[in-house]
Amino acid sequence: MIKILKYGEVENKDIFARGSVKTNVEGIVSEIIENVKTNGDKALFEYCEKFDKAKLSSFAVSADEIENAVKSADEKFINILKKAAANIRKFHEKQVRTSFIINDENGIVTGQKIIPVDCAGLYVPGGTAAYPSTVLMDAIPAKIAGVKNLVMVTPPRPDGSVNPVILAAAHIAGIDKIFKVGGAQAIAALAYGTESIPKADKIVGPGNAFVAEAKKQVFGLVSIDMVAGPSEILIVADETVNPKYAAADLLSQAEHDKMASAVLVTTSKKVAEAVQKEIELQIPMLKRAEIARASVDNNGKIIVADDIKTAIDIANEIAPEHLELCVDNPFDYLDEIRHAGSVFMGKNCPEALGDYLAGANHTLPTSGTAKFSSPLSVDDFVKKTQYTYYTADALKKVAYDVAYFAEQEGLTAHAKSAVIRLEE
Amino acid sequence: MIKILKYGEVENKDIFARGSVKTNVEGIVSEIIENVKTNGDKALFEYCEKFDKAKLSSFAVSADEIENAVKSADEKFINILKKAAANIRKFHEKQVRTSFIINDENGIVTGQKIIPVDCAGLYVPGGTAAYPSTVLMDAIPAKIAGVKNLVMVTPPRPDGSVNPVILAAAHIAGIDKIFKVGGAQAIAALAYGTESIPKADKIVGPGNAFVAEAKKQVFGLVSIDMVAGPSEILIVADETVNPKYAAADLLSQAEHDKMASAVLVTTSKKVAEAVQKEIELQIPMLKRAEIARASVDNNGKIIVADDIKTAIDIANEIAPEHLELCVDNPFDYLDEIRHAGSVFMGKNCPEALGDYLAGANHTLPTSGTAKFSSPLSVDDFVKKTQYTYYTADALKKVAYDVAYFAEQEGLTAHAKSAVIRLEE
Repeated sequence: MIKILKYGEVENKDIFARGSVKTNVEGIVSEIIENVKTNGDKALFEYCEKFDKAKLSSFAVSADEIENAVKSADEKFINILKKAAANIRKFHEKQVRTSFIINDENGIVTGQKIIPVDCAGLYVPGGTAAYPSTVLMDAIPAKIAGVKNLVMVTPPRPDGSVNPVILAAAHIAGIDKIFKVGGAQAIAALAYGTESIPKADKIVGPGNAFVAEAKKQVFGLVSIDMVAGPSEILIVADETVNPKYAAADLLSQAEHDKMASAVLVTTSKKVAEAVQKEIELQIPMLKRAEIARASVDNNGKIIVADDIKTAIDIANEIAPEHLELCVDNPFDYLDEIRHAGSVFMGKNCPEALGDYLAGANHTLPTSGTAKFSSPLSVDDFVKKTQYTYYTADALKKVAYDVAYFAEQEGLTAHAKSAVIRLEE
Repeated sequence: MIKILKYGEVENKDIFARGSVKTNVEGIVSEIIENVKTNGDKALFEYCEKFDKAKLSSFAVSADEIENAVKSADEKFINILKKAAANIRKFHEKQVRTSFIINDENGIVTGQKIIPVDCAGLYVPGGTAAYPSTVLMDAIPAKIAGVKNLVMVTPPRPDGSVNPVILAAAHIAGIDKIFKVGGAQAIAALAYGTESIPKADKIVGPGNAFVAEAKKQVFGLVSIDMVAGPSEILIVADETVNPKYAAADLLSQAEHDKMASAVLVTTSKKVAEAVQKEIELQIPMLKRAEIARASVDNNGKIIVADDIKTAIDIANEIAPEHLELCVDNPFDYLDEIRHAGSVFMGKNCPEALGDYLAGANHTLPTSGTAKFSSPLSVDDFVKKTQYTYYTADALKKVAYDVAYFAEQEGLTAHAKSAVIRLEE
């Protein structure tokens, strides 16, 4: 059963503790990466046979395969995917930044350009963790950013095919090229490039422990989105919340995995007890009851706080991936929320709405990293370049200042490079 | 002597090779971090005595110390620092982003808020690598971002004082609090917090191998700016460039350190030879001649390319930290430049101008990471939070779509959380 803690009456570390996952796959993964770096496609074909039980003659998914996937897919689902894609596009288009230029002093121009990365790679897991929603969430911002070469990698099934729903989502999202390769070897291929797979500048997308470790190991050589921890929800609720809704929302994260964490912070002891009961009633109805049970028992908690302000302070300190604000006037509190990946305002906004349809991204900072990290966005697929232009006259006015500054730092070649232009 | 290579006549790997630094301090650094994490200030005092030969009773720099530093500093230099700070502010203020809100559908609000991190830590090296310019470049964007608690750490001198020029720059930049602690232990203190030093959400600033390794090790727990490689300049020049200027500019990076890389790509064999000669004439005049000599001989190169387009292609492939475009009409080529940290346009714009005074940042992506990374900016000190609001009526219209989507992914608790609000 989910535990109830009274804030102020238990140690703070019990309030703020969170689960973390430790794995021990560094060695295996670095070996895989080294092999792909050295042997390219040859290594990939071997891993494909070994890990995915698929004997492939090429990695690329053909245009026919994609067309068939779209045709064979459930039409109703395709329509919902398209609706979701439209909302995601609408939200992320607002993130597009423009370059700037400053030219208000005689003979001086400075500016900043926004430039998309040349190639981005999107990892999509196979099996039951193959989420078409994540394909949309990770691919659409890249296309809006202007990435010309957006590549998806995903493990093949033993018959050499790819889950058609994933192909359909990739098609809707506008992915340029799809390759049947998964696991740490797929990350290695994107980081170093092989005969078939292009070298990516940015790698995004979730995966198992091997994929996560591989992303960690290639970080620096390429950019990565994040190394995601277990999924999290924190609900702040006053006495007006319907305990059934709160319980359902907590369970929607708890069902993700056994290490997921579902936390309710409420000002009402009555709500705390009602939600505790309601969770017990709802768990048995779930397909993934066993996972939800483990998550709730191990990492779930209900914290009773004196007032909403205290509840929000606790939320800020935890900095959850998903934050629901289940109160009557949620916009009254929006400015108080400083650290959270995605906020769901009010009592009609279950977190699942954001996972699929509302438009904001669902690839979010976990493990408290919302204190310094952001949801996946168009920004992840662009970078900035600055530029500076001075005319000879403009340089003349500042060259001796530059030289003086450089001399103070002991850098005489820096000084020389400014004044040599006046001397000659 | 700097080598001259003809593009197309040598192997591409010789064109694109670059120096990298390998260190072997992981073990020492992880021990230091563990000690600071466990013992806090006590460990810091001990390291201070051991590494900095300073016996301190407290780490905080007092208001008096700062005031005296400003008073005692060279007035001319203070004025140049203030001019530089004004230009840096002007440039970085253009980077400030505004939050957005979308509310064009009945009963639906989505948005994105930009929120500064609570606390940022700025590392400033001691000794000859103490650069007041870097204090300005790293601190001003943080203050513009709205960081309330901007903390600087820097090693004390044996007498327990801090370089007054650094204190003066910190004062001009508006740093909130300064602590006398350096090395890997300072990074550990910022990452975990101690009795004296606040825990930071973001750590920026350059440092020696120990500092760089410590930043790598705490990355994830906190955000860091980058792990910087050796400094780099690449000059693209046609036959109109003055070889003296080009040589001086190459040397301005070469003097930084022996692993720094200075590269000229020119369309003119005559320019190549003249610059080669000119470098030899200028090196002996430099204070850091020995460093510049090693850098030029080991990592310097002049590449002769057939035309400007090829030269720019080479530059994009190398993705240098600093790129000078020494041609007559540099703006004709600005759109062709895709990968560079900071671009210096035309022949009157030595890179040193950007190091100190022009206003764009000088903390830049190295080692080819300009393909996916950006100069330090206001963005480094903020993060985004999304929010979503639906009225009960708005939810009603989409709840079954959300549930259908969730069912397709096998997540029945997600589905339930949407439809339970219609059932009850």
